[in-house]
Amino acid sequence: MAYEFKMHRRVEFVETDMAGVMHFSHFFRYMESVEHAFFRSLGLRVHTHGEAGVWGWVRAHAECNYLRPLRYEDLVELHLLVKAKGSSSLTYQVIFRLPSAEDPESMVEVARGSMKVICVTGFPGEGRLRSIKIPAEIDALVEVAPAELRD
Amino acid sequence: MAYEFKMHRRVEFVETDMAGVMHFSHFFRYMESVEHAFFRSLGLRVHTHGEAGVWGWVRAHAECNYLRPLRYEDLVELHLLVKAKGSSSLTYQVIFRLPSAEDPESMVEVARGSMKVICVTGFPGEGRLRSIKIPAEIDALVEVAPAELRD
Amino acid sequence: MAYEFKMHRRVEFVETDMAGVMHFSHFFRYMESVEHAFFRSLGLRVHTHGEAGVWGWVRAHAECNYLRPLRYEDLVELHLLVKAKGSSSLTYQVIFRLPSAEDPESMVEVARGSMKVICVTGFPGEGRLRSIKIPAEIDALVEVAPAELRD
Amino acid sequence: MAYEFKMHRRVEFVETDMAGVMHFSHFFRYMESVEHAFFRSLGLRVHTHGEAGVWGWVRAHAECNYLRPLRYEDLVELHLLVKAKGSSSLTYQVIFRLPSAEDPESMVEVARGSMKVICVTGFPGEGRLRSIKIPAEIDALVEVAPAELRD
Repeated sequence: MAYEFKMHRRVEFVETDMAGVMHFSHFFRYMESVEHAFFRSLGLRVHTHGEAGVWGWVRAHAECNYLRPLRYEDLVELHLLVKAKGSSSLTYQVIFRLPSAEDPESMVEVARGSMKVICVTGFPGEGRLRSIKIPAEIDALVEVAPAELRD
Repeated sequence: MAYEFKMHRRVEFVETDMAGVMHFSHFFRYMESVEHAFFRSLGLRVHTHGEAGVWGWVRAHAECNYLRPLRYEDLVELHLLVKAKGSSSLTYQVIFRLPSAEDPESMVEVARGSMKVICVTGFPGEGRLRSIKIPAEIDALVEVAPAELRD
Repeated sequence: MAYEFKMHRRVEFVETDMAGVMHFSHFFRYMESVEHAFFRSLGLRVHTHGEAGVWGWVRAHAECNYLRPLRYEDLVELHLLVKAKGSSSLTYQVIFRLPSAEDPESMVEVARGSMKVICVTGFPGEGRLRSIKIPAEIDALVEVAPAELRD
Repeated sequence: MAYEFKMHRRVEFVETDMAGVMHFSHFFRYMESVEHAFFRSLGLRVHTHGEAGVWGWVRAHAECNYLRPLRYEDLVELHLLVKAKGSSSLTYQVIFRLPSAEDPESMVEVARGSMKVICVTGFPGEGRLRSIKIPAEIDALVEVAPAELRD
């Protein structure tokens, strides 16, 4: 069973804006990328797309608190924790950290976000996707992080 | 004094993902676009960038609740309300609405987001931007929406 | 029969980069947006997505020459021309123009791009999409621009 | 002296569109990311942004030929070659390759693009950036690939 995952990602030029920092919307893309890498690390896939329609996870809620800017070429640590698990949903927390400017040995929190995702199925192009129970294969591998690790 | 703004925006092909719906991160880009259009409607600008450095608004917090998917070519109504105003910050609420499938005369809520933004100045490439008081010109034009309009 | 289309589009903050100008990749998104608006203006759709799979247009080639930068809030004119038409392909030219700084009555060319698109069908998630003849409904409405209008 | 660079990049969910494949505009973002990684591999930076203004590389031309689609989680090889070098410009070729479905030992070309970039300096927010000679430090490290490697 797994409840956390860490990866690093380097800020790209195209992700900066004219204020010289990473645009706030890209933090949400980064949150999704660490969620997907977490699934890959467990041998799982977040999405399938075939003749039987799609199966995947839609976002019910997403949020982010911004503490410091990220800049071009910053190598940011993304730390994902499973905060909650429902019958058809998972809630993730993602902490963004950079090495401290004063003490490169220690890490400084840059931002902290969360996402609640719902397992769904349906046909693209039709009406609403409908929620389903988390598949057994995933349920067996993903667990909620210990309380002392969640904020 | 103004406390709300409405505009429409059509979902683009590039904004859809392989699930056939608009990717959740783009709702944040839409929120920013209605914020900027609100400022333009008042003859204001959200950002300047000259030899004296930058002046603008950084995000302190952003969140969104997703109720229904948006699809390619949907013409979505964006309704911005000023929810709160501090000495150096503004908090916006943005409601996303589509015409109802059952009754095209009425609108259905698709998503609801909010952003807290802070007025800052500084030089790009340097350390942190520092917060400043909302400029008098803006302070004179932007007010908080009546309580009955805010959720 | 139609062979050209014009629209305006305002450069968004998120489309700028730390050099203070619109990122070069977004010119390709703009080219696609005027292509899609051209189809909408004819009552056509560029893409369908149902149980029978997808039908749409893939890019075979895309290119752009950049002459001047675009900046935040620039209101750029997009001028699409149909340059060529094959049995299953269309080639578009898109000219980007801004009002001249010296003489706001006249327009200055900012960039010029082209795209060759191929009509395809297939199931998402399967192998290659296969090219098909341009549907009769579209073939009847879209024609090549007169030679003197093409560069 | 260096004239080529290879890296791998995994296609992200947000980069797919409703046709189930990576949107064509993202190939240009990938081309830029391998250009920047090439510079990092030489201890160089493609952009600086300080009180003296910006220094960097603008695109004069970009193009791409698309042969096969890329899909979610494809691990694509990006192979950059320096095709030409002028006093203030560099031209890159980027070949996109995937393992062959029939023979995973061999690679199949997915797309092939090129970009001509010009070394510039200037102040963001002002008029046009002006071209400058390639700095000596870069000129000493980057050379044109042998003719037999260029297409």
